[in-house]
Amino acid sequence: MAITVVGSVAYDTIETPAGKRERCLGGAATYFSLSASYFTDVRVIAVVGEDFGKRQEAVFQARNIDTRGIEHTAGKSFFWEGSYLENLNEAKTHITDLNVFATFNPKIPDAYRDSEFLFLANIDPVLQRRVRDAMPQAKLVAGDTMNYWIKDHRPALLEVLNGLDILLINDTETKMIAGNNNLVQAARAVMSLGPKTLVVKHGEYGATLFHGAGAFRAPAMPLEEVVDPTGAGDSFAGGFFGYLASQPEQSPAAFRRAMFYGGVMGSFACERFGTERLQKLTRPEIDERFNIFRELTHLD
Amino acid sequence: MAITVVGSVAYDTIETPAGKRERCLGGAATYFSLSASYFTDVRVIAVVGEDFGKRQEAVFQARNIDTRGIEHTAGKSFFWEGSYLENLNEAKTHITDLNVFATFNPKIPDAYRDSEFLFLANIDPVLQRRVRDAMPQAKLVAGDTMNYWIKDHRPALLEVLNGLDILLINDTETKMIAGNNNLVQAARAVMSLGPKTLVVKHGEYGATLFHGAGAFRAPAMPLEEVVDPTGAGDSFAGGFFGYLASQPEQSPAAFRRAMFYGGVMGSFACERFGTERLQKLTRPEIDERFNIFRELTHLD
Repeated sequence: MAITVVGSVAYDTIETPAGKRERCLGGAATYFSLSASYFTDVRVIAVVGEDFGKRQEAVFQARNIDTRGIEHTAGKSFFWEGSYLENLNEAKTHITDLNVFATFNPKIPDAYRDSEFLFLANIDPVLQRRVRDAMPQAKLVAGDTMNYWIKDHRPALLEVLNGLDILLINDTETKMIAGNNNLVQAARAVMSLGPKTLVVKHGEYGATLFHGAGAFRAPAMPLEEVVDPTGAGDSFAGGFFGYLASQPEQSPAAFRRAMFYGGVMGSFACERFGTERLQKLTRPEIDERFNIFRELTHLD
Repeated sequence: MAITVVGSVAYDTIETPAGKRERCLGGAATYFSLSASYFTDVRVIAVVGEDFGKRQEAVFQARNIDTRGIEHTAGKSFFWEGSYLENLNEAKTHITDLNVFATFNPKIPDAYRDSEFLFLANIDPVLQRRVRDAMPQAKLVAGDTMNYWIKDHRPALLEVLNGLDILLINDTETKMIAGNNNLVQAARAVMSLGPKTLVVKHGEYGATLFHGAGAFRAPAMPLEEVVDPTGAGDSFAGGFFGYLASQPEQSPAAFRRAMFYGGVMGSFACERFGTERLQKLTRPEIDERFNIFRELTHLD
């Protein structure tokens, strides 16, 4: 079933110990939709400037991603510049130019309205809420957020959480929302704010799924070389939610496999700069890595 | 088959968000041997002072641990005081009084010499080496170390590594020994120094087993409350090595299950102050938690 995703489509200049790339195609909605496109139909809502042309459009088209919801407007696209020279687990931001994103007002094409799955990538919670309200048919809604919204936009964020089925965030964000340093207690507090399912991403240590009273831990793959961790979390979300949307039923077993597919797509994302690796995968490659992940934790 | 362990038997004063305890029975050899005692016969080599009496001895005896290698000498036992008030993952040390441990010269009872398994807990690598050389019959030798020895006693540590089959350390220690920030590359570098098997403990995120070109990730259990993390790593080692020693063959499957038993014993250790929880477990409780761990990562 189709997923609609709303979020950023951007340019990133990235420096890591493996090198530097200028103005890669990036943004949460880009990573998410490329990743999810290996599992199901994806439709994007975003805004770009005049610097987004045929070549960028072609990246989405090659993966059959519906771009009718990408609004083209005067000005420049969202631009981010950051580096991971000291710590591959945490970006150091040098420049954030919101550009056309500063006045982003998501417009939902009519063709998107029957999407049964909705992903609200990390943007202003006021906009997340607006898109969620405009798509009442969505039967499963997942979302992401970040420290900035948690600290300074709590009332708007709480309204979003209240409308989410699944929240995907990292350890720090979980503890920050809850104001509690114990992950299990913090997870329970976050879930009491709305999402019945919480996925906490632990970076190189994998991720934990909290659902009801139960928990499930999916590994990350120990990587020989992390070329560029940018977008790994959004790629995880794309694999996770894309796999769920591809299943006839969102059973507990499907959620577990979705966690593994999330890890698989996150690991691919790190292997090249930007979205390079995500553009040219095949489903057999993905399933081969799924089996490596399974073997990585399989007991008998 | 029997394990001989050499390491510290000590008193710890511990403060955590859950409270404070004065002079708990502690030390790496204590945690290790209590944990391993649920799987196989354990023999301890250590040194204690006049403050170690019948009551402490009884803790070992209740678990059928052989204490003939615990030397009693004039003076006070090793004493450590630390707190985890800001960060449950890292102790802040307030006091380290080596006391009788400062002149520890391990004496190996003849009755220990047929031990086929040897664990060198975190002590001066010169002493680790001496014990290893004095027990040539040991067919599987595992060990631990810490930042202090890695930084300032490298030549002695390298001699120990060269004689180890299995090294159990944490992420930071692995990267520090290798001088490499990528875990996979660092693991390979550490294994080139001797140990064919490397277990890297990730605290609340579980542990990774590196063996040949393969890797295996065991989870940690998300704990509702961590009362006291002291000794969790040594308890992990005790469960891991104790289970291995209990098996007729140290097959790859046995190593995987050993990783899970390590995590199980580490999780129990955190539930009470000091060794309280480890003193009173039952094998059915341990296997029940093993099944929870299995369920935590089991796919289908």
